[in-house]
Amino acid sequence: MGIVLGPNRYGKAECRVVRIVRDTPRHEIRDLNVSTSLRGDFTAAHEAGDQSQVLPTDTQKNTAFAYAKKHGVTSPEDYALALARRLLEATPAATGALIRVEEYAWDRIPVGGAGHDHAFVRRGGEVRTTAVDLSSEGAHVVSGLTDLVVLKSTGSEFTGFLVDEYTTLPEAEDRILATSLTATWRYSDRGAVAWNRTYDEVRALLLATFATTYSRALQETLYAMGRAVLEAHGGIEEISFAAPNKHHFLVDLEAFGLDNPGEVFIAADRPYGLIEATVVREED
Amino acid sequence: MGIVLGPNRYGKAECRVVRIVRDTPRHEIRDLNVSTSLRGDFTAAHEAGDQSQVLPTDTQKNTAFAYAKKHGVTSPEDYALALARRLLEATPAATGALIRVEEYAWDRIPVGGAGHDHAFVRRGGEVRTTAVDLSSEGAHVVSGLTDLVVLKSTGSEFTGFLVDEYTTLPEAEDRILATSLTATWRYSDRGAVAWNRTYDEVRALLLATFATTYSRALQETLYAMGRAVLEAHGGIEEISFAAPNKHHFLVDLEAFGLDNPGEVFIAADRPYGLIEATVVREED
Amino acid sequence: MGIVLGPNRYGKAECRVVRIVRDTPRHEIRDLNVSTSLRGDFTAAHEAGDQSQVLPTDTQKNTAFAYAKKHGVTSPEDYALALARRLLEATPAATGALIRVEEYAWDRIPVGGAGHDHAFVRRGGEVRTTAVDLSSEGAHVVSGLTDLVVLKSTGSEFTGFLVDEYTTLPEAEDRILATSLTATWRYSDRGAVAWNRTYDEVRALLLATFATTYSRALQETLYAMGRAVLEAHGGIEEISFAAPNKHHFLVDLEAFGLDNPGEVFIAADRPYGLIEATVVREED
Amino acid sequence: MGIVLGPNRYGKAECRVVRIVRDTPRHEIRDLNVSTSLRGDFTAAHEAGDQSQVLPTDTQKNTAFAYAKKHGVTSPEDYALALARRLLEATPAATGALIRVEEYAWDRIPVGGAGHDHAFVRRGGEVRTTAVDLSSEGAHVVSGLTDLVVLKSTGSEFTGFLVDEYTTLPEAEDRILATSLTATWRYSDRGAVAWNRTYDEVRALLLATFATTYSRALQETLYAMGRAVLEAHGGIEEISFAAPNKHHFLVDLEAFGLDNPGEVFIAADRPYGLIEATVVREED
Repeated sequence: MGIVLGPNRYGKAECRVVRIVRDTPRHEIRDLNVSTSLRGDFTAAHEAGDQSQVLPTDTQKNTAFAYAKKHGVTSPEDYALALARRLLEATPAATGALIRVEEYAWDRIPVGGAGHDHAFVRRGGEVRTTAVDLSSEGAHVVSGLTDLVVLKSTGSEFTGFLVDEYTTLPEAEDRILATSLTATWRYSDRGAVAWNRTYDEVRALLLATFATTYSRALQETLYAMGRAVLEAHGGIEEISFAAPNKHHFLVDLEAFGLDNPGEVFIAADRPYGLIEATVVREED
Repeated sequence: MGIVLGPNRYGKAECRVVRIVRDTPRHEIRDLNVSTSLRGDFTAAHEAGDQSQVLPTDTQKNTAFAYAKKHGVTSPEDYALALARRLLEATPAATGALIRVEEYAWDRIPVGGAGHDHAFVRRGGEVRTTAVDLSSEGAHVVSGLTDLVVLKSTGSEFTGFLVDEYTTLPEAEDRILATSLTATWRYSDRGAVAWNRTYDEVRALLLATFATTYSRALQETLYAMGRAVLEAHGGIEEISFAAPNKHHFLVDLEAFGLDNPGEVFIAADRPYGLIEATVVREED
Repeated sequence: MGIVLGPNRYGKAECRVVRIVRDTPRHEIRDLNVSTSLRGDFTAAHEAGDQSQVLPTDTQKNTAFAYAKKHGVTSPEDYALALARRLLEATPAATGALIRVEEYAWDRIPVGGAGHDHAFVRRGGEVRTTAVDLSSEGAHVVSGLTDLVVLKSTGSEFTGFLVDEYTTLPEAEDRILATSLTATWRYSDRGAVAWNRTYDEVRALLLATFATTYSRALQETLYAMGRAVLEAHGGIEEISFAAPNKHHFLVDLEAFGLDNPGEVFIAADRPYGLIEATVVREED
Repeated sequence: MGIVLGPNRYGKAECRVVRIVRDTPRHEIRDLNVSTSLRGDFTAAHEAGDQSQVLPTDTQKNTAFAYAKKHGVTSPEDYALALARRLLEATPAATGALIRVEEYAWDRIPVGGAGHDHAFVRRGGEVRTTAVDLSSEGAHVVSGLTDLVVLKSTGSEFTGFLVDEYTTLPEAEDRILATSLTATWRYSDRGAVAWNRTYDEVRALLLATFATTYSRALQETLYAMGRAVLEAHGGIEEISFAAPNKHHFLVDLEAFGLDNPGEVFIAADRPYGLIEATVVREED
């Protein structure tokens, strides 16, 4: 029984590509963190140190920057698709390319009631993401967001749970529900998607559903959010969530002669609940 | 020549106090990170292990949470002043208290065009700060913000600098100027300040001045920002900045047959320039 | 075509369990970060908010701490196996449990040439990891380490690579090779493994192989390291690596009248190469 | 009352200088993070955008790398002193230079019982630091360490403290004492100090004193550590500590039918106590 190379891939991670569009005095900015990865037959590089089929990660980086100019960045998805095609074309031994992009949002600085032409303030909050996987089987586009921190100060309970001898948690009829949401959704259509508009709509729908759904557990909330997205967007096949339950514990102020009807909480760091769920379309 | 105790202080750092105001169905949220520190005559604790004059840091933490209820949080400054007074009162050996507060901003989640009553999304972006120092000499209130990330895609140069034999930097006629701003301003008036309104106004003024000032160096930009704040706010004595120059290097695309007139940049991490400056009122 | 729940799991992440063994005056310490995760039929919780089959994450946390006493921690693997068994037993709806453990190493503080009985200094360096997955199919134990930062100041080249029109990288005959290694290996035997001894041996072998193998690329180095582990440890089925190529760029000092034959480097942060590879036993 | 420039300084932060000494086949490595800062009369740069007296931060960076070759790095202190002198010499408007250096330690990888000639593993644990401030008044050298994480599993109590109406903490007769120590000591002699040997001796003394001193509070422990250093090292004027009290809370296992005599703890993140103290030589 011999020892052989199994799955492998390589690329350049975290190229911080900033693209300014300055065709008019009103500039636009796209602020990206781009990671590339190639897979395929790179056995000779591993077993014999033979780099002749290896496109250097430095070249992958160069291509990421060059394509920000040559192809442009109208959306992370469109840019990543172009970059994936180019890297596969340049690397005969590669059978697949995975391009990951994070995008950081900027707002125009308000001056006299209007947004400035070329001065921006980073918005903060969630990061937009995409992962484009291109191979002979076509492209998979999985877009999403991460670090969308949301909180409900009421409208959330956790009761009726399974109890064993290690259970000490009291039931909560009214608690804070908070999470730092990571969501990723897979597009069925990989071509003519309105990437930016769909992103904005999904983000808005996730937020509104979180706000308006009474929560009997974070699981139920995530499922409702996923269901709402799939119902509204026929071009999305499935959506996945990773949601830390960011515990806010009610502080006991009784010893100090103070009541605390849901007013003062301590936000805890660790440990935290971690809920992961995918909502999919049923196969026929 | 003996060995003795020099300056010392102690307290509880990073109490994550979340205060929900729920007197009406339209909740409010204040999300704070509170650190306390007491100084004074604590020699016996250091030299003899005698804790009789030491108010435990656990008690300081309890007080921070209790005061979020008992006193309330209309602003970080007002809350910190109350907490400082209480801790000094409770600790006879203490001659001074320093309370530091960071505040994280939340927006209401938009639902059907309006902000939701009890569902929030964390805004991201800059963190509001205050440091209240209370002693027999009165209170010093130094408020500010940190992590306000701003960028100008034009309107910035860096030329005419001192050159020595280790200088290789070419002059830049048009470059990206970006920083993650930390600003702190000291109030002369410690009483009836409109803390929240002043914060909003200073923040807006810093942003607008950054946007509209042509920059011949980050130093000049900071000075202009500080000057604008002191001119508009008579109740502010001085303002200090710490501003990393977040370098965005133009990528050379010539080898790829592409020109790059200020369009594609790499955002660098380290090293970075670090500019620190204070703008003050001249003493007579 | 309906919308349904897909894969899902939940648990408590990052329980910081510290276990002191103090049966004798010479204490031992195990310092763990424990994350639990249960999967199975939790559809009712997601679709109907019905928690009756859901063992709370708070209970999972309690169990993690209780088992540090009841079962003890002779190794992360043995402890995680016991915890997985307990959580499956307590949760009828669960079909699988995944327990992840990170362990932080401590050394005895040296006093007068010997290690102190009950005073420790955290070692720093790499973190030991394990992921135990238990289901009706049995247990999978995947152990490893992360953040093992290694560097060779010579004995590394990168030449003969594929060149396209975006390639500007010169060949390097002698460069620094550095990485922050993450390695995970899967045990075939899940029972009577000498977990601690095997960990120590694999770690030593990874280090020695890195040191003594001439490197024509990080890929070749990783493959050699994996091969060495599989050859020496029949009870290990496969080993995987994720290795950022932490670039150290030679600084051009020529403009300053200084040569630089591999002496002064700048350690870069981003972007970085990222090499991932698995070495496996060939199936017959 | 006019508005003017107050204190200001500028420089390049976090130059990651790696110096390999390869005069013989047995290489040495010094791995530094270098930050420079100049202060003086830079009013014209702030008020008028005039850079003619401003040595660019890019030049300061170049000098940091060039001096790693030209002057060499026998210790962070010696290197920083040389760099400070050079930057002052190159910048007529500067009246002072502050050079901060962090050093990361590496061990030789053990191969066959001996350390390898050119393969290293990063040690982890504490970071060695220095801050050299040079002006017409001479040099101040403040060296130290940070992130030295230590823990005692017994030999620590906290009792007899001040109690007020917000105090709920019970007295602890036997607790874990843990901290992540930052220490900085100021040398009186700025010339012929054996920087590396002194560092090693102070570090060893801090550790041994922590281990062997019964602790009635972290304050007492820090004072004892400082006193020990000043007693042993006549060339050190004063030593300062910042020590987070990394709380390890005993977990209540009684509900599960288990006792817990100091065996199972939860390591908490926030909030934490923060103790700061300086030990000095008494002035006559």
